[in-house]
Amino acid sequence: MIDRYSISPIKDIWTLEAQYNRWLEVELAVIEAFEQLNIAPQGTALEARQKAKIDVEKILETEKVVDHDVIAFIKVVTEYMGDAARYFHMGLTSSDVVDTANALAIKRAGELIEKELDNYINSLKKLALKHKYTVIVGRTHGVHAEPTSFGLKILSFVSESERNKERLEKAIFDISQGKISGAVGNYANLDPQVEEIALRKLELRPCKVSTQVVPRDLHAEFFSVLALIGASIERFAIEIRHLQKTEVLEVEEPFKKGQRGSSAMPHKKNPILCERLTGMSRMLRSYVSAAYENISLWHERDISHSSVERVFMTDATILAYYMLNKANFLASNLVVHEDAMKENIEKSYNLVYSQRVLLKLVEKGFSREEAYELVQKYAMKAWDQKKNFKDLLSQESRILENLSQEEFEELFSPQYYLRNIEAIFNRFDFSYL
Amino acid sequence: MIDRYSISPIKDIWTLEAQYNRWLEVELAVIEAFEQLNIAPQGTALEARQKAKIDVEKILETEKVVDHDVIAFIKVVTEYMGDAARYFHMGLTSSDVVDTANALAIKRAGELIEKELDNYINSLKKLALKHKYTVIVGRTHGVHAEPTSFGLKILSFVSESERNKERLEKAIFDISQGKISGAVGNYANLDPQVEEIALRKLELRPCKVSTQVVPRDLHAEFFSVLALIGASIERFAIEIRHLQKTEVLEVEEPFKKGQRGSSAMPHKKNPILCERLTGMSRMLRSYVSAAYENISLWHERDISHSSVERVFMTDATILAYYMLNKANFLASNLVVHEDAMKENIEKSYNLVYSQRVLLKLVEKGFSREEAYELVQKYAMKAWDQKKNFKDLLSQESRILENLSQEEFEELFSPQYYLRNIEAIFNRFDFSYL
Amino acid sequence: MIDRYSISPIKDIWTLEAQYNRWLEVELAVIEAFEQLNIAPQGTALEARQKAKIDVEKILETEKVVDHDVIAFIKVVTEYMGDAARYFHMGLTSSDVVDTANALAIKRAGELIEKELDNYINSLKKLALKHKYTVIVGRTHGVHAEPTSFGLKILSFVSESERNKERLEKAIFDISQGKISGAVGNYANLDPQVEEIALRKLELRPCKVSTQVVPRDLHAEFFSVLALIGASIERFAIEIRHLQKTEVLEVEEPFKKGQRGSSAMPHKKNPILCERLTGMSRMLRSYVSAAYENISLWHERDISHSSVERVFMTDATILAYYMLNKANFLASNLVVHEDAMKENIEKSYNLVYSQRVLLKLVEKGFSREEAYELVQKYAMKAWDQKKNFKDLLSQESRILENLSQEEFEELFSPQYYLRNIEAIFNRFDFSYL
Amino acid sequence: MIDRYSISPIKDIWTLEAQYNRWLEVELAVIEAFEQLNIAPQGTALEARQKAKIDVEKILETEKVVDHDVIAFIKVVTEYMGDAARYFHMGLTSSDVVDTANALAIKRAGELIEKELDNYINSLKKLALKHKYTVIVGRTHGVHAEPTSFGLKILSFVSESERNKERLEKAIFDISQGKISGAVGNYANLDPQVEEIALRKLELRPCKVSTQVVPRDLHAEFFSVLALIGASIERFAIEIRHLQKTEVLEVEEPFKKGQRGSSAMPHKKNPILCERLTGMSRMLRSYVSAAYENISLWHERDISHSSVERVFMTDATILAYYMLNKANFLASNLVVHEDAMKENIEKSYNLVYSQRVLLKLVEKGFSREEAYELVQKYAMKAWDQKKNFKDLLSQESRILENLSQEEFEELFSPQYYLRNIEAIFNRFDFSYL
Repeated sequence: MIDRYSISPIKDIWTLEAQYNRWLEVELAVIEAFEQLNIAPQGTALEARQKAKIDVEKILETEKVVDHDVIAFIKVVTEYMGDAARYFHMGLTSSDVVDTANALAIKRAGELIEKELDNYINSLKKLALKHKYTVIVGRTHGVHAEPTSFGLKILSFVSESERNKERLEKAIFDISQGKISGAVGNYANLDPQVEEIALRKLELRPCKVSTQVVPRDLHAEFFSVLALIGASIERFAIEIRHLQKTEVLEVEEPFKKGQRGSSAMPHKKNPILCERLTGMSRMLRSYVSAAYENISLWHERDISHSSVERVFMTDATILAYYMLNKANFLASNLVVHEDAMKENIEKSYNLVYSQRVLLKLVEKGFSREEAYELVQKYAMKAWDQKKNFKDLLSQESRILENLSQEEFEELFSPQYYLRNIEAIFNRFDFSYL
Repeated sequence: MIDRYSISPIKDIWTLEAQYNRWLEVELAVIEAFEQLNIAPQGTALEARQKAKIDVEKILETEKVVDHDVIAFIKVVTEYMGDAARYFHMGLTSSDVVDTANALAIKRAGELIEKELDNYINSLKKLALKHKYTVIVGRTHGVHAEPTSFGLKILSFVSESERNKERLEKAIFDISQGKISGAVGNYANLDPQVEEIALRKLELRPCKVSTQVVPRDLHAEFFSVLALIGASIERFAIEIRHLQKTEVLEVEEPFKKGQRGSSAMPHKKNPILCERLTGMSRMLRSYVSAAYENISLWHERDISHSSVERVFMTDATILAYYMLNKANFLASNLVVHEDAMKENIEKSYNLVYSQRVLLKLVEKGFSREEAYELVQKYAMKAWDQKKNFKDLLSQESRILENLSQEEFEELFSPQYYLRNIEAIFNRFDFSYL
Repeated sequence: MIDRYSISPIKDIWTLEAQYNRWLEVELAVIEAFEQLNIAPQGTALEARQKAKIDVEKILETEKVVDHDVIAFIKVVTEYMGDAARYFHMGLTSSDVVDTANALAIKRAGELIEKELDNYINSLKKLALKHKYTVIVGRTHGVHAEPTSFGLKILSFVSESERNKERLEKAIFDISQGKISGAVGNYANLDPQVEEIALRKLELRPCKVSTQVVPRDLHAEFFSVLALIGASIERFAIEIRHLQKTEVLEVEEPFKKGQRGSSAMPHKKNPILCERLTGMSRMLRSYVSAAYENISLWHERDISHSSVERVFMTDATILAYYMLNKANFLASNLVVHEDAMKENIEKSYNLVYSQRVLLKLVEKGFSREEAYELVQKYAMKAWDQKKNFKDLLSQESRILENLSQEEFEELFSPQYYLRNIEAIFNRFDFSYL
Repeated sequence: MIDRYSISPIKDIWTLEAQYNRWLEVELAVIEAFEQLNIAPQGTALEARQKAKIDVEKILETEKVVDHDVIAFIKVVTEYMGDAARYFHMGLTSSDVVDTANALAIKRAGELIEKELDNYINSLKKLALKHKYTVIVGRTHGVHAEPTSFGLKILSFVSESERNKERLEKAIFDISQGKISGAVGNYANLDPQVEEIALRKLELRPCKVSTQVVPRDLHAEFFSVLALIGASIERFAIEIRHLQKTEVLEVEEPFKKGQRGSSAMPHKKNPILCERLTGMSRMLRSYVSAAYENISLWHERDISHSSVERVFMTDATILAYYMLNKANFLASNLVVHEDAMKENIEKSYNLVYSQRVLLKLVEKGFSREEAYELVQKYAMKAWDQKKNFKDLLSQESRILENLSQEEFEELFSPQYYLRNIEAIFNRFDFSYL
């Protein structure tokens, strides 16, 4: 991933050095298991740990000769390891190390991502709570529908994000599986107990069945969830972009002091962060198909998944982290123009109340069809002639005959639309904020 | 594809009967080639043509036994064919028939699609021409940028569609390749001349190299182009959806008499057709990855592409046709509110002229930086205080000192932004409309 | 979906009639809730149920006028409903009906799919159990690695499928959410209790937050899981296709009596079913990206998801069902050539035992590096000269000096590689088969 | 893109410094156009060129304040530019610079990729030519079909790659479009002649219509072609992987001296490069959907495409280059075992000649059906009993009665299958190699 989007701490997971360190972690956990099972003499693990030396440059040099990264790693790391070296990687195949280490990496990346997701959820909750009773027009098909609460709009992102949190937790749990089962997954040269002990030390679980590798549906699941998180942020970003359109301008992305929106047009304040997030979601989504294609490996494995994962594991986790980090910034600092929300409702000639009129007429004994036709007639007239729907209706005899003045007036109140907001908010826990 | 989106004539290409007819077309063209090369006696082709009988039900019945659609087809079609039957499918492998017939089908579908594309382009051109000098605010990042012409906006779809037409023509040309080269593409049992003659009759060309099948990169190319066409219509649909938003309302999708926008809200006029087209583009896009995955067949072929193509060849061509048909309807019947376009420009406090002021100041000797800062300062003030940018500027001493009243006034004219529209329109041919 | 792949009962879910019936189910459940809450008089629901009439043709006719499917449905269904009609769809928006009914449809489709998945898992388990101790060579990178058990190979599909079952159950649970929350999801004209009661009757749960629609991440999740199931079957199909290659021929897809493999080559027995399944997985995978793109709807909803879902909901569920049905057939009827498995191991000159020799040498005091180089030297010689690795080694002095004859012989036994198979199988429950 | 896959010279295109240099190239070309049109005084361009200073670190620093990369670039580059600075970026919008510079970058990347594609094609041609008459069994569905030529197999990759070359050339031509048309593409503050002159200097063409940006269908087209190239290499890689399977072993990926195939199994020689390439094609394919989603920008542009392109433009071009470079290495150094090809044909009991027998019988007066059934009967017997098809047939009376011994023998000759190879090769130009 390019520097521009790589933030610490997530990016530190993906350095070569960090990778070699994880490989060493796995190899040492196996030696500890050997000790515990009396396969290796007491003290071997300690000796291995003390004498292991990771020299990134040297490993890369060696790889050029042997054309195999794990073998290069072993050669360099065990060079001065003395007797302990014989237990190093003993009975293991490269994928025992690489895939178990990958599980560690993805799990840790997942945990960092979850933390940012938590932050984002909390900021959204605060925003939702603050605007629980802020009236905004609800829009369907991009067209004014009925009044609603801006807080409720935000709450839908809370709800989606909570689902994503649950999915992420499941995916982290599922990806926390390693394998120390040897070349074709049958423990030919390793006792299953070695795997059990070593993985427990690493806080991973053994796969119920592995081949040479950990099955790739687990990875596909994990990266699907990242794409779902991306899509949810995309939805949030697109909502803001819509609300920031010049004619609407109900919210604004925070605009930094000194910031410039355009090299040509000094007046511009553009929702560029939201647009950036929108684009990033496309990337996260695109990685999913590669992750799915990685599942069908040949026989006990082919290594075609590896080049793919070298690219997208890094990129997808870094992008997801970046997106959540920025989405949290947006949710925390969003500029909200409540007045504009109020003004905008007016722009549709009171048509947003059409259903209430319809339902009231039905209540008064009209058939649904009659009521619909009556209301639609005046609604279309209001649109076409840019006249106020309420005014037009107020002169219609069928209204006058059936509704009292008070009843009629009452139909055009935005507050009515918020009467069940409390019930919805009660489904969420805000107490810990 | 579901009935709802299947329009004639494109859907008629994909009936089982039409498919068997194409298979027969190919088989007969081969027999004609046999005759021409004196491999079969004169009159064989005629006899075969007259006695061939396509009985869809019977073929399906037979397929249940032999589990092979082409063999079932041959059995049934040649049942009463007499002597000519021995030349029927002689030396051919099923894919000679199926893939050549598929080329015919896709080519014909492509030609139908191209006709709709032409209609769409022409309607767009008319719309562009009509609104060549209709002023509308140009929007970048969803925010008012500078005035432009609504016709120019439409012209960008013309231009994109003309590129797509060129791509489609290339793709149709490329897909017009058949193969009569036998089981593994080496003409073991067939003279290459048979292929040449038969395909010429079918108005196809031979692949330079075929395996058992026509190479699938050709199909991938074709279906990529459909997805590009889809994406272009999606862009058009999204533009309309934006312009139809209640606060903007510069254009409207045609709304039929009797139509109802919502079961709940009688006032609603929603751009549902545009939304439908937006969604369909997602489908067309999604088929591309399947088409690409079809390329890497094993050795001289495996048949994994077949189930995929049975679904997406039909679906993608039908959807593309439907989309163009409806996009043409939209372009021909779009409701345009020129007055709203004019009014909306006003909504941004004359800020759309900020660059002109900037450039004028630079012309008057300001450094770019000075000018930018001056203009941005008043621009931000205009936004924040909802004041008119022009009014604010008119009291700034640095403006007063450097610009005459006339010069100043002249900066705030939308017409200025249309002075090069003619030059752009001149790049296109409208003469034939 | 095309007829060819549409099997009952799953296809019956997706008829127009079934859809209208589900819509009616939802509308009636709401009326029942009205009754229970004393919003409608007792008996209304019964009257509505008895008088409701679904006339598919008439609804389609009406839709042509009103250009809205739900409104057309209501018009026709309530035509002779009498008084109950006023409570029909009262306060609802179309999506309350459509999305809730979709939840019913997908849930039911999911349950049918799960049943087939169960069948597939059970057949795989039986196959695994039967071949628990059948030796086959494990292959990594397509190259002989070490001996393993054919049953274990199959068990990896069991394990993956059990994960998919768990995912499917979660996805079915998650998709079992409807909404009766009105035009913008704020229960403006409906008590939240109506939703609660109506959905409970339908065995669904209310969304914690809905907009006009049920949030689309739920659908994306569901269809991702179908693609994972597809990918797992693809892996199974590819495994069989590999094992059926002429040079390997360890298993064969069942070949029906009377079946013909090729119209040209009478000798052919091709794994066409496996190839078909391979292709179908590409389709399922491709739908995922469309499902993900559906998530970011505008504001309280736009309807762009609808055209997409009309196509892929049907197609994806039907394909997934078909694939599982056929995969189950394959797993139940696979032709297994144990003798060929034994013979094929021999084809790699005993090289599959190289790691055991390596580890034995390390055990005898060699450094890992020394041992690797010694073994690799003879391994390459065996490959290059097509000589038996064991024979070559048996004359190497360093072997002779360090290993007894018995120790040496013991290294070349395939049984050794199965000693931990039992431990792996014990992780699964076979008792209920 | 990760270092591991980034090779010079393609990676040098994508450094930040190279990017700023391209931006400067564009800005200077515009100033030159200003001079030529007497908008700027003579000598301005020279002064600007001499005094422009690209300081990467300082630009990045400045960007942190202004939050806009082009503005930061302009500030730093023009800092010591003196009078020429006023003509720098005058009337331009950022995208005039960025998109035109991107066109330069992609065009140049495309040209580098094309060179590698040429190398790959040439190596494939040499390989094809060398093995024009090397007999190998053709395989369909993974199963022996009929004999063919290994050179022909390779020629199918030549043919596909030549198509890709043509596509790439078209895509490079199409992407070679810049825009200097200002903020919303209407040349409000710039004469169209400026664009014409400046782009000609840069060897680019103007878009017929641009918005604020160059239309993204051009990029989608370009990156689709890279994915097609990737898919073709994937097909090549998968072919090799199949042919290198232990039981087949007709070709081998070059194995370097000192290379190690497995950390566990010293005997392993794995086609890891081919597997790597297989995986990379998945990445290239996945970028396509992101590129397609980039097309539908809002109005005169939104910047959502930018974050996507920052990632995939770099990654896709680098991967495509790497893949071609390695594919060329493979094609040039492939180890071919002609003897194994010969031996493998034998493994199918002479069944590969079944069609010839069938056709001969038809020639002798059998009906197609009779002949098919006779041949299939013996073919199945040969498979099932592992007996030689020729031997079995030789005792069948209907054969004895209709074919002379010589005629019968002649049916089982692999050479027969190569008789039209020359005709296919003649369709290609090998003369320049």
